[in-house]
Amino acid sequence: MNIPNRHVFYISDGTAITAEVLGHAVMSQFPVSVHSVTLPFVETELRARAVKEQIDAIYQQTGCRPLVFYSIVLPEIRTIILQSAGFCQDIVQALVAPLQQELEVDPVPIAHRTHGLNPANLGKYDARIAAIDYTLAHDDGISMRNLDQAQVILLGVSRCGKTPTSLYLAMQFGIRAANYPFIADDMDNLRLPAELQPLRSRLFGLTINPERLAAIREERRENSRYASLRQCRMEVAEVEALYRKHQIRYINSTNYSVEEIATKILDLMGLNRRMY
Amino acid sequence: MNIPNRHVFYISDGTAITAEVLGHAVMSQFPVSVHSVTLPFVETELRARAVKEQIDAIYQQTGCRPLVFYSIVLPEIRTIILQSAGFCQDIVQALVAPLQQELEVDPVPIAHRTHGLNPANLGKYDARIAAIDYTLAHDDGISMRNLDQAQVILLGVSRCGKTPTSLYLAMQFGIRAANYPFIADDMDNLRLPAELQPLRSRLFGLTINPERLAAIREERRENSRYASLRQCRMEVAEVEALYRKHQIRYINSTNYSVEEIATKILDLMGLNRRMY
Repeated sequence: MNIPNRHVFYISDGTAITAEVLGHAVMSQFPVSVHSVTLPFVETELRARAVKEQIDAIYQQTGCRPLVFYSIVLPEIRTIILQSAGFCQDIVQALVAPLQQELEVDPVPIAHRTHGLNPANLGKYDARIAAIDYTLAHDDGISMRNLDQAQVILLGVSRCGKTPTSLYLAMQFGIRAANYPFIADDMDNLRLPAELQPLRSRLFGLTINPERLAAIREERRENSRYASLRQCRMEVAEVEALYRKHQIRYINSTNYSVEEIATKILDLMGLNRRMY
Repeated sequence: MNIPNRHVFYISDGTAITAEVLGHAVMSQFPVSVHSVTLPFVETELRARAVKEQIDAIYQQTGCRPLVFYSIVLPEIRTIILQSAGFCQDIVQALVAPLQQELEVDPVPIAHRTHGLNPANLGKYDARIAAIDYTLAHDDGISMRNLDQAQVILLGVSRCGKTPTSLYLAMQFGIRAANYPFIADDMDNLRLPAELQPLRSRLFGLTINPERLAAIREERRENSRYASLRQCRMEVAEVEALYRKHQIRYINSTNYSVEEIATKILDLMGLNRRMY
């Protein structure tokens, strides 16, 4: 089958992250090969006209209307984009109109900046940065100080996804997430460190299929004992036994992205998701 | 004025990150006070029915239909949510219908998982994790090894936003982002380190208003010279002079979130945004 190819623009007067994520979700529903361009901070008429020309040029080259997913507050900027040859869809407005009826209030579109900073959210933003600092300071068992301030303490063997998951929890949700590694030397007599015992309710285990773990470790240290399937099998078995013994909740990270692991942890632990 | 209050649900069979971000963007357009609940991984009929009951209970308590922003692939799960008392809006579908006409192809909705892992994107995912590893290993000038593998090297004084921005670049966009701090001891004779000189085109400077910097530092070390406005003014002036002398591009991070700083840097440096 011949898969059609389309140019797609994600355009915003802000970061364009929302336009990009949603447009990508929409496009992934179609059997179409996509060539995409993201254009953030389209805030001036000058830049908007340059963007319009870029869209029009693609149309002239290909004879096919580029698809445009946009979110722009100022009407005069929006108008310029809408004059382009693109097939333009306002990602937020499509949902605003039906809501307006249900809510029986008019929208006040001026203040909106999804990923922006303003005096009203500065305190919340500072808490997020503090969560990132905390998480970095408590990555990989570096520091066991102030561990009682952690909202989650991730456990697991080396390279099972603790660090990226902790950082994602801090960055996306403002969660203070420590993590503690079980290393090969611990395995002969694996036990839960004394510092972690009183914090049992905040512990969360990660596990991973030994085959995937061996492949990840092989990238780091080729042909090492560390990366051998035998070693990986042994470590994973020991750690899973520890989780069961102490009734520590855990999930297998093998087939999940950091987004999925992080949101599953929050869901299972009943932690609130902050939004930034 | 009496601001109405509404319960809002963000529901998905995946992480619900897209539903949350978009629903939040839509709600922020209305002068309505929002009480929100995010429910990810609604993948079974059992869980869907529990969610329906949760929505219905709110309706019975408040007499007001909860607003529901959802994205669910399986029709049998979707149907259960749609039977609830909520005012339900499919965040992706609202944009799929008009596109279907324009593209003249039917959507194939089964495969969609925005933040999921699958064999087709595993290589790209591994590259993202490698970018996070690289960024952590090159945070705060810890290591100057392999600096030529960085796609961006952020410069700036202590606490101007280098670390969160680098991590966000790695996490969200898969960019290998090193960062290098200028510390107080450097200031008497501030110069660009020899290791950075050949990498001039990848350098990017951050600056910050001295007042905001002093407030951030004060949180860390109260009443210190480090946090004094005088010290902050001096450091910022020196570093900005260095940027200008070496023609290093820079932005002032004071009024921007990490999302905004990161996307501005990519935009100004012409770096591609990967999507995960």
